[in-house]
Amino acid sequence: MTNAKVLNELRAAIGAEAVATDPATLTAYAYDGTWAEQRPAVVLHPLATQQVSDILRIADRERIPIVPRGAATGLAGGSVPSEGSWCVNLARMNRILSISPQDSIAITQPGVVTAALQQAVEAQGLFYPPDPASLNQCTIGGNVSTNAGGPRCLKYGVTADYVLGLEVVLPGGRIMRVGGRTIKNVVGYNLKQLFVGSEGTLGVITEITLRLIPKPQAQSTALAAFAKLSDACDAVGKILSSGLTPLVTEIMDHDVIRAVDAFQRSRNVDAHLPLEADAMLLVAVDGDRDQVERDIKFIAELLRKSGATQVQRAHTPEESEALWEARRSVSPAIIRLGNARFGEDIAVPRGQIPQMVDLIKQIARQYELLIVVYGHIGDGNLHPNIICDRRDADMMKRVEAASHAIFDAAIELGGAISGEHGIGLLKASYMPKSVDPIALEMMQAIKRLIDPNNIMNPGKKVQHLEW
Amino acid sequence: MTNAKVLNELRAAIGAEAVATDPATLTAYAYDGTWAEQRPAVVLHPLATQQVSDILRIADRERIPIVPRGAATGLAGGSVPSEGSWCVNLARMNRILSISPQDSIAITQPGVVTAALQQAVEAQGLFYPPDPASLNQCTIGGNVSTNAGGPRCLKYGVTADYVLGLEVVLPGGRIMRVGGRTIKNVVGYNLKQLFVGSEGTLGVITEITLRLIPKPQAQSTALAAFAKLSDACDAVGKILSSGLTPLVTEIMDHDVIRAVDAFQRSRNVDAHLPLEADAMLLVAVDGDRDQVERDIKFIAELLRKSGATQVQRAHTPEESEALWEARRSVSPAIIRLGNARFGEDIAVPRGQIPQMVDLIKQIARQYELLIVVYGHIGDGNLHPNIICDRRDADMMKRVEAASHAIFDAAIELGGAISGEHGIGLLKASYMPKSVDPIALEMMQAIKRLIDPNNIMNPGKKVQHLEW
Repeated sequence: MTNAKVLNELRAAIGAEAVATDPATLTAYAYDGTWAEQRPAVVLHPLATQQVSDILRIADRERIPIVPRGAATGLAGGSVPSEGSWCVNLARMNRILSISPQDSIAITQPGVVTAALQQAVEAQGLFYPPDPASLNQCTIGGNVSTNAGGPRCLKYGVTADYVLGLEVVLPGGRIMRVGGRTIKNVVGYNLKQLFVGSEGTLGVITEITLRLIPKPQAQSTALAAFAKLSDACDAVGKILSSGLTPLVTEIMDHDVIRAVDAFQRSRNVDAHLPLEADAMLLVAVDGDRDQVERDIKFIAELLRKSGATQVQRAHTPEESEALWEARRSVSPAIIRLGNARFGEDIAVPRGQIPQMVDLIKQIARQYELLIVVYGHIGDGNLHPNIICDRRDADMMKRVEAASHAIFDAAIELGGAISGEHGIGLLKASYMPKSVDPIALEMMQAIKRLIDPNNIMNPGKKVQHLEW
Repeated sequence: MTNAKVLNELRAAIGAEAVATDPATLTAYAYDGTWAEQRPAVVLHPLATQQVSDILRIADRERIPIVPRGAATGLAGGSVPSEGSWCVNLARMNRILSISPQDSIAITQPGVVTAALQQAVEAQGLFYPPDPASLNQCTIGGNVSTNAGGPRCLKYGVTADYVLGLEVVLPGGRIMRVGGRTIKNVVGYNLKQLFVGSEGTLGVITEITLRLIPKPQAQSTALAAFAKLSDACDAVGKILSSGLTPLVTEIMDHDVIRAVDAFQRSRNVDAHLPLEADAMLLVAVDGDRDQVERDIKFIAELLRKSGATQVQRAHTPEESEALWEARRSVSPAIIRLGNARFGEDIAVPRGQIPQMVDLIKQIARQYELLIVVYGHIGDGNLHPNIICDRRDADMMKRVEAASHAIFDAAIELGGAISGEHGIGLLKASYMPKSVDPIALEMMQAIKRLIDPNNIMNPGKKVQHLEW
């Protein structure tokens, strides 16, 4: 528990209304998008960089753990409070500070919801591409802290590719600016990319300068069914090596297709999904109207030639939307397959995808579990989801073992244990297996250098813990 | 001077033939692409990572400065040897280790010449976009160490955007691997991007894994003349906000056009350049044949509508090549304008380009110097070149003052003092003015952490020096 004197100091610094210790608030901030939970000691609601600086000055002196939090939609436990911690809720720092069409940039506070930023820049003819699945809830600060991805990252790259500059409050309260407003910049070391994806373990990000691009005129989508999942993988390989970069290439395996169909039917929608298919691909393109028309036609033909048993092509934005509705239903649909699901996020070199999917299916048989697979196939980023019942202790042991087997398989194939969700709490213990030992030692040394009292999100990311 | 015992230890470790101390060799490695020069104490020619490791183990123990060197085409003095240093020549580690079309990656040693890598991957239908001007001489290791750019980076991004993984030898000799073979990877901190662009001050890069893309089918180019440079800037703004991303948008001012024309004529070539123009734009597009045709037509029209007094469009690869020949002649042409030229490399936010060019012209008048301007305008990356005579001490003082005034102007406009050349020796003293003081302190702390004995390219990049 934080003592009364320190609480009063906090209240004086950031305002009494921004310091919460009531049980209801503490409980409301005990979760993120995972199963992990832990109530913080205090929840703080700063509105300005200086307030964050005051918080980090006091916390560093008092050696109190700080857990920064955006919308807590994270899937690695990164924003789950640690014991006795101060949860720093950045969701109220939610102003877009400026949008400059001239310089093609936006400057924003961390608490802006991703979709809100996208709408604001699109109203000015600009475009912010990264689209994590939670974009209607998650915040830009959270996206930067986890280097969030999403389907459109195939064509446009991940969050890191759009961060030009950051303002960061360091442990102890100093305020640092890195990067700037220019597209090219080779001045000094790239500290910016050290903080992007650092999951709140090095400091609190309080302002973000983002690169924007012009909004594409049009978009179109095709859906293809395959009797063999490996044919779907081959088709994606052919599309990508054709020179045309689609906006997205999403895959769903047989079980995901059936789950989505059942879920849609429960809402009285018939998506006409290919229920007998081993795998389904959703491919979208964007650009100017002519190009989109030519590209989607080319892709539809290529899909047919690659052994697709069925190709549906959207001819209107409404038809595109219907196809996308299926993709967006994946999460709620999968949850209904069991009492719960354990979602994974591995990345493998593109050529290894078919083998990775085979290994996942082998692991499912070995541990007698249902593991369904979907993901951003063009990026090699797959989301195997283990369907489970959390009340079944024996099953949950097998879930843990299967999840480790999936990590091992990904590493064996030259892959990574996280493509876009992060390491957080859940995968911290797996870091020694996934990173070169000297690199991990250097990461930990950098953590100690920047955060000598280990107040920033301790135990996460580069500090291993028992799982 | 390195003592005989240590020299013998080096010879035993990496072979006597790889250790040079003869004056001719020392002199041959005393330069880079700048005016700075300094003979190293020893030149070493390692052929393998383990030999680099042995060198760094011995050097760290003996506290001997290490200056890694690729082809020494750098324009910031980054590979100029410091006094008593060992120059580690990586040019002989020049094997492409593998090219995988399936995974769209190449793994290469650092000494591979950029153009050689490009040819090798293009032979397999793949493409490595970054194209620094020195691509026929410079090495991939040097490109990674400086985060090199080039004209095509407008569409495709800089070297950093293609680095998936690195093997780095650290001071003391330990060998570290960061990143990997996957496109997406959020495991641990992004150490990879800390080493990219670190200009040999943190370790020696001995292996690089690069992301490749499919080779575009076709390319086409247009040249446009403008009576006012600001109209050319506006035209680029219009192109970029149209949603179409050209391959390149290069600008040359009046003086550069005339210099190139004179240079071409001296070689009996008439490039038909617009000699009366205030500025000239070279715009290229790439993609599939149909798209290239549509895009260049669209751009040619847009250039005409934006006030271009003349638009030449290449209809064949040969015509494109002739337009490019003018761009490639810029450096030799400019050198002929005086006894020497001092080339700068600033970056500003895109909207600030016209103002930056105005300021450069003002600075030229103020210091009574000819400063010509060309560069990668779409990226906001300009290369003002100060024409000078190195024998004229008074003029050289004005050159230094003008160059600082250009830096100040770029910083004032929210820009950076280097977009793609690096900081090296020449701009190290300007770092305190260009980077947030807390960020600079953190960069220096990271340097001390990774290189506690300061053997790696001391005095460069983040360690300020008198200019």
